[in-house]
Amino acid sequence: MQKVNLQEKLGLIHDHWTPKIVAEVGDMHVKLAKIEGEFVWHAHEEEDELFMVLSGELVIELRGREPIVLVPGEVLVVPRGVEHRPVAHEEVHIMLFEPKSTVNTGTAEGERTVDLPEWI
Amino acid sequence: MQKVNLQEKLGLIHDHWTPKIVAEVGDMHVKLAKIEGEFVWHAHEEEDELFMVLSGELVIELRGREPIVLVPGEVLVVPRGVEHRPVAHEEVHIMLFEPKSTVNTGTAEGERTVDLPEWI
Repeated sequence: MQKVNLQEKLGLIHDHWTPKIVAEVGDMHVKLAKIEGEFVWHAHEEEDELFMVLSGELVIELRGREPIVLVPGEVLVVPRGVEHRPVAHEEVHIMLFEPKSTVNTGTAEGERTVDLPEWI
Repeated sequence: MQKVNLQEKLGLIHDHWTPKIVAEVGDMHVKLAKIEGEFVWHAHEEEDELFMVLSGELVIELRGREPIVLVPGEVLVVPRGVEHRPVAHEEVHIMLFEPKSTVNTGTAEGERTVDLPEWI
């Protein structure tokens, strides 16, 4: 049982859009990621996904709804089935809480898919 | 679907040791709490519990192990079955991520038990 310092762990991440696992709580993972640019539109059929912004400004585009802008200290849960696209105009650091089964690209498997996220 | 600003939600909490729900992710709740002083020793038989410190310094005492001190930006998961006691020498603001079934006092039900945490 060890504590996790989020800034230390972020220092170990050198690529964008590659979520890394830092903790598990039951059947959920806590992940960290650095992101920049536009991700792919996708949904998660079975999993709700929590985004928390640690630094920067994250836009969550939502199909058929107004986008939601998150700044540090703000949290959004994207329910299962809701098509969304994260966009970061400059680098953003995020924490994710989501079921272990969650694949980053959900229904839009492709070159940005990370099948088995690493622990850091 | 609405974002949650953690500082705004903390402004709605006026008592210590009364976790409030701010989001749900699958069968997990995200809760916020203000704490000060010593809690009761307890364990959660079935639930892992994630603590994240938002402000202040939190000591998690652990039966038979060294205590772990958490500062803002640090996270600790206390696995199910591990007896622990949160201690805050001055007021601490925390975020919790835990199964919906989790009762704050776990195995030590008593006057500090919050059976049905409120949403804020």
